[in-house]
Order: sequence, then structure tokens, then C-alpha cells
Amino acid sequence: KVNGDRLWDSLMEMAKIGATAKGGVCRLALTDLDREARDLFIDWCRQAGCTIKIDKMGNIFARRAGKDDSLAPVITGSHIDSQPTGGKFDGIYGVLSGLEVIRSLNDLKYETNRPIEVAVWTNEEGSRFAPAMVASGVFAGVFDLEYGLSRADPSGKTMGEELARIGYAGPEEVGKREVHAFFEAHIEQGPILENEKKTIGIVQGAQGQRWFEVVLTGQEAHAGPTPMKVRKDALVGAAHVVTAVNKIGHSNQPFACATVGMITNSPNSRNTIPGSVFFTVDLRHPEDAVLSKMAAEVKAAAEEACQQHGLSMDFKEIWYSPPVKFDANCVAAVKKGAEELGFDAMPIISGAGHDACYLSRVAPTAMVFIPCEDGISHNEIENATKGDCAAGCDVLLRAIVERANA
Amino acid sequence: KVNGDRLWDSLMEMAKIGATAKGGVCRLALTDLDREARDLFIDWCRQAGCTIKIDKMGNIFARRAGKDDSLAPVITGSHIDSQPTGGKFDGIYGVLSGLEVIRSLNDLKYETNRPIEVAVWTNEEGSRFAPAMVASGVFAGVFDLEYGLSRADPSGKTMGEELARIGYAGPEEVGKREVHAFFEAHIEQGPILENEKKTIGIVQGAQGQRWFEVVLTGQEAHAGPTPMKVRKDALVGAAHVVTAVNKIGHSNQPFACATVGMITNSPNSRNTIPGSVFFTVDLRHPEDAVLSKMAAEVKAAAEEACQQHGLSMDFKEIWYSPPVKFDANCVAAVKKGAEELGFDAMPIISGAGHDACYLSRVAPTAMVFIPCEDGISHNEIENATKGDCAAGCDVLLRAIVERANA
Ligand SMILES: NC(=O)NCCC(=O)O
Ligand SMILES: NC(=O)NCCC(=O)O
Repeated sequence: KVNGDRLWDSLMEMAKIGATAKGGVCRLALTDLDREARDLFIDWCRQAGCTIKIDKMGNIFARRAGKDDSLAPVITGSHIDSQPTGGKFDGIYGVLSGLEVIRSLNDLKYETNRPIEVAVWTNEEGSRFAPAMVASGVFAGVFDLEYGLSRADPSGKTMGEELARIGYAGPEEVGKREVHAFFEAHIEQGPILENEKKTIGIVQGAQGQRWFEVVLTGQEAHAGPTPMKVRKDALVGAAHVVTAVNKIGHSNQPFACATVGMITNSPNSRNTIPGSVFFTVDLRHPEDAVLSKMAAEVKAAAEEACQQHGLSMDFKEIWYSPPVKFDANCVAAVKKGAEELGFDAMPIISGAGHDACYLSRVAPTAMVFIPCEDGISHNEIENATKGDCAAGCDVLLRAIVERANA
Repeated sequence: KVNGDRLWDSLMEMAKIGATAKGGVCRLALTDLDREARDLFIDWCRQAGCTIKIDKMGNIFARRAGKDDSLAPVITGSHIDSQPTGGKFDGIYGVLSGLEVIRSLNDLKYETNRPIEVAVWTNEEGSRFAPAMVASGVFAGVFDLEYGLSRADPSGKTMGEELARIGYAGPEEVGKREVHAFFEAHIEQGPILENEKKTIGIVQGAQGQRWFEVVLTGQEAHAGPTPMKVRKDALVGAAHVVTAVNKIGHSNQPFACATVGMITNSPNSRNTIPGSVFFTVDLRHPEDAVLSKMAAEVKAAAEEACQQHGLSMDFKEIWYSPPVKFDANCVAAVKKGAEELGFDAMPIISGAGHDACYLSRVAPTAMVFIPCEDGISHNEIENATKGDCAAGCDVLLRAIVERANA
């Protein structure tokens, strides 16, 4: 069994880096705060006897040697970056659970056959730099390195520049090595486990996602003397699409989610009719066919907005992450761990994307979910209990050890 | 007759300060560019023999002495600040027309009975600092000085701080002196004169305006695992209101205008359900009763959005500028000038607010409009012809001289 108090203390210590007024964390990818948190993690890993490697995407691997250190490792981990108004469990819980597994194995002087590595994947959130899971995507060969390093934030700074700036542009090749298995522990970020009163979610896979960037262009004009009937108001067009995206989410139930998370209006002046609006669309569904249908519906709504309001548009799909099914053996290892420990557990499909989604393309993969309060994540009030955190970490320990010895 | 070439050259010279790629101007109130343009104007006025006074709101008065300099002056003028994507005529045309009147009187060695002053009113646009026409409002006693100086831009900088920073916090008391008459020349900023093929608009008054600031608050949550039915999406609520504002504009024809010009979404992250949205509403109508009805309709739409989407709201009216009727004698002076010069002219109601609206509370006031291309303003492509600029200035000259000698 892991040390739940130690895991909790590490979570709370880490949560100080980027702490926000409402009890959350703002630790955007590749900011100084991200660096500070990475430094602390590496410090803790070195104290636990690990060796550290960093690759060209800034992914960190903290390694505990195996009996046969030439064998492919079992890797676990998640991410350190957060949303602008993020919580203190999303991502970092999976990273520190990995560390706690190593600390616990050290306490027990337990040697696994294969090496175990704790990974920190760069920019999982996709908030500062889109898309999400970009560095685990490069690791898995889904994106090439150049694509990964050239992702830019809204101010134009690239991941490559920012990795160099914070000193995390490592020397290692990205990916291109065998991974025996990958496990990721994470808070659920939704309400299902809590509603079903379960401690452990045995994650079977993840729903698919499609991300879009849309620019609607009309014509700036004076809000006072410009008659309603001659206006080309880009924001009125964008509002039409925001409303439609929401309806498309509701009309593709069960499971569909559809969100406009980001919108930037130009020139954004009180008495000027908006001339152009940029916004993003995030669509999710576990079935690829429904996801595609939703995408077509959004596009049709944007075309309708253009026709009704005299606008032109640039409509781009910038990311497609297909539905994922995890490895049967790894899922079984998670299930077995939960059963042996006597936790109430249930199978679950992840609503969010995770680095595990991309890892599953190059290694047998599974995930462990624990509940979060009211199902709330990507919010400063995100919360989880010490007991659930320890429970998830216990299951992770068993699944890792089972695979590392198999 | 004024010198139309000289007026045009001055307009083009001034348009270099803050020039944008698409041929417009970005010269936000109290920025370094505003200072540069003010400095140039003062330079030109001194060369034309004027004395300069600057008041505590940064309003500039360039004075040409009258035969009896103890008499109250006739003032003309407008503003130097622009929209973020503004044109090279809005405001500055009225300022430089005033200067051209003085230059022409100098050329003719013509002495008026009363002194003539060219005024530059600070922050007319209301874009960087809301509301519009704030410094002419303080001059007219509509706002007190403290209110004027404490207006803040989105980054929190106040007009008082920024006036001090650019060296335009002058020593003079604001207002509190007699003004014999006020005239303002301006581009129409709408399509009426062009559609009616008229050179001169004899402005009878201006429609009323009401400005609002609205914050809708929901709950941030993850765009992936958060079911549609439990969401409190502030942007979906805002989209409802944006759509409603546009409909309210259309349903209160003739004359009504209704615009959401500014919107800021938080946390503005692609995969986070928006937790709060700030936006502005600009309502206009020449009849006060209709304007009030429109305001009530907007409020009802915002309340509906809150109910439908589980949001709370902060709904504030931040500015009310009632419909204005200009002084019969001053309007007659403009009409007479246009008639004597043989221009096609028509009476018109201003769709925009102008410093003249506030001046009309403390002095007999009127305005001269000239057409602008396609009725487009608050846009970098804003345009007017050299001939129309000269025509408006000629009318201004006659109206000013008539009042300054009366
Ligand atoms: N776990 C998580 O918040 N991932 C971010 C990517 C996504 O939006 O699904
Ligand atoms: N003339 C002008 O653009 N004024 C700004 C105030 C308004 O929006 O009416």
C-alpha cells in the first residue's frame, strides 16, 4: 500500500506553485511556474533515487531501475501544466501518484523486473498552445517534432522558444523506443463516479474530439449612424454559431459535448460594429460517426450565419483525436488491482483527452480514474479526497507492478 | 472661402500619426500618439498666432483674439482621438476645419468682433475610456471633474494618470465660463447624405444613447466530461443576449440601432466551459420613449438568458445621453452659410454622439455634416472627398463669423 499522507502532502506542496485566490492553480504550459513545478518534481525524483532524462519536447522521464534494466520500461505519468483557472489535481495527481509508487517501492525495498519510469508530458491541456496532448502526440509519432515545437500561443511564442527559455528543451529523441506498458492515474473530471458512488473508474478508452478554429469577417462600422439593415456584424454571426454549437451538443445525446471555449472580438470597441471574430469549437463523442455528423452540423450553422449576416468565413479543423480503446491486458491489470484492494469500481469512458490516448498508439495502455467533487474540473474549486487519491495510487501501484514483473 | 488644399494637406499630415496598414488611424485617447497629434496641432495653432490654454481634463483651446476680446468666444472644434480601427476624418476633420477657419481669417486679415477658439476635446470616442464625450461632458457640467479623471481603461489606467503621463493635465478650470456659440464640423458617419446626394447636412440634433455593461456568471467546467444538461455556460448566455440585442435593433425601426461592440470571455480556454463573460450594449434612438423600451427589452433578454442557462448577472447602465435638439439660431447660421455658398444641403439628425451634444447644454450649438464614402466610419477605410471637406469648412467659416460678429 502507498503512503496516502505523503502523496497528499506532495500534492498540496506542488499546488503552491501557481496557486490562485480561489484555491486552484494557474500553471500554464512552459511558463516560469511550469518550470518551477518541473524543477521541484525532478528534485523529488532524484531524492527517490531516480535518473532523469528530458527529450526535445520537454517531456521528463524519471527512471527507477529494474532487475533487468535492459527490458522496456513500464511508464506512468501525466502532466504538470494547468488551465488558466485550473485545479490542483488535474494532471499533477497522475505525476505525483507515479512518484508515490516509486517512493513506496523504495520503502518496501521492492525490485521490479522491468524499470519503471514516471513521465511528465509537456502541454497536455492545449490551453496556452493548441492542440492538447501535443508532446505525448509527438512521442507517439502522431505529430512530427517540427509541428510540436512550432505550436504558438496567442501572442505568437512557440513551444520551441518557450522550452528553450525555461531550460527544458532536452537532448533526448522524442519517442522511438519500446514502452512495455503505460498507465495514467487521473481525476475523472466528470460526475459519473461520484453519482454512482464508486471509488475507482476502470477506464476503457476515451471519446473522440474535433477542435475547430473559426474566423467570421464582416465590416466595422459606427454603432450609431449605421442602419441595422446594412450591417455586417461579425459578433452577431458568432453568437448564432455559439447558440448552434450548444444546440448540437444537446441534440446529439446521449454523450455528445459541444463547446465554444474561446472567443476574441475585433476591434472590441463599445461603439464599433464588430468587424471580425475568432472563436474555437470543441466537439466530443465516443462514436466517430456521430462526431463527424456534429462537425457537419457546426459547419452548416457557420455557413448559415455568414449568409444571414453578410459575413465571410475561415473554418478550419485544427485537431482530430479519434475515439480510443485501451489495451485489454492493461485494463485487466487495473481491474484486478481494484478488486484485490476491495474498492467499489466501475468501467468508464473518459470524457477528456489524456496523454494515455496517444500512448495507447505505441504501447499497451490503461488509466485509473478517481472521483472529483461535483464532477467539476478546469475550475479553481476542483477537489478530490485524500482517501480517493490514495486509493487510485494503490490501484496504480498494483497495475504497474503486475506489468513490470509479467 | 477657405483653402481646401491646405485643409486637406493638414488632414493627411495628421493622419500619419497612428496610421494603420489599411489606410486608417489608431490613435486611442491619451496614448503617446494622441500626445504627438496634440503637439502638432498646438504647433500649427501657434504658427497661426493663437494662444493656447489647456484645462484639467486635457481639453485644448487655441484662441484667436477678437476686436473686443472681453466678449465670450465662439468656439469650434472636435476631437483628436480615434477608434482602434478608426479613420482619418472622424473628429480630426472638425479640429482642423477650425484651424483652417483661423488660417483663412488670417489670410484675409479679417477681424471678428468676438474671439474665436478651436477646441480639442479629450476622449470623445469612449473606446479606450468609457463613456464617450467625457471631457466635453465635464466642461458642460454633466459629469464632475473627479468622475472624468477617474475613468479607467481595461488595464485599469485612469484618464487622470494618463493625462499627467502625456503632459496634458492642464491648469485651467474645466468649463465655468461663458461660450457665445459652439459649432462642430464632422463627417456624417452614416449613409444618408451620400444616398440623398447632398454635400452639407444641417444637423438639427442627435439621437439618444444608452450604454450598458453586463457580466454573466456561470461555472467553469471541463468541456469534455461535463454533460450538456448540467452546464452553466456564460458564453451561451451571452450569445443569447447578443442575438436579442440585434433583434431589438431590427424590431424598433425606424431609426433604432442596437450593438454589442465589446465582449471578453473568461477563462477563454478552448476546453473550458466559459465561467463568465463581460459585454457592452449600445442602444440608440431619437425618441427617448423608444430608447427606454429598448433598454427594458435588453434587460428582459439578459434575465431570460440567466434563467435558461443557470447564470447570475450584473447589469449596469453606465451612460445615458438623451436626445439633443440644437439651437435654432446656430442651426439657421449653418443653413444660411450653405445657402449662400449654393451647396445642396438637407436637415439631418446625428446618429452618433458628438462633443456638440454636451456643449449644447451650456451654449447655443449646431453642427455641419459632410458625407463619407459608403457611410462607413469607425473603420480604417473611412473616406471623404477633398471637395466635401472644403465645403463643410466653408459653411463652418460663415456660421462662425456670423455668430462672432452678431
Ligand atoms: N485531462 C484534460 O483536461 N485534458 C485536456 C484535453 C481535453 O480537453 O480533453
Ligand atoms: N462621433 C463619434 O464617433 N462619437 C463617438 C461617440 C458615439 O459612439 O456616438
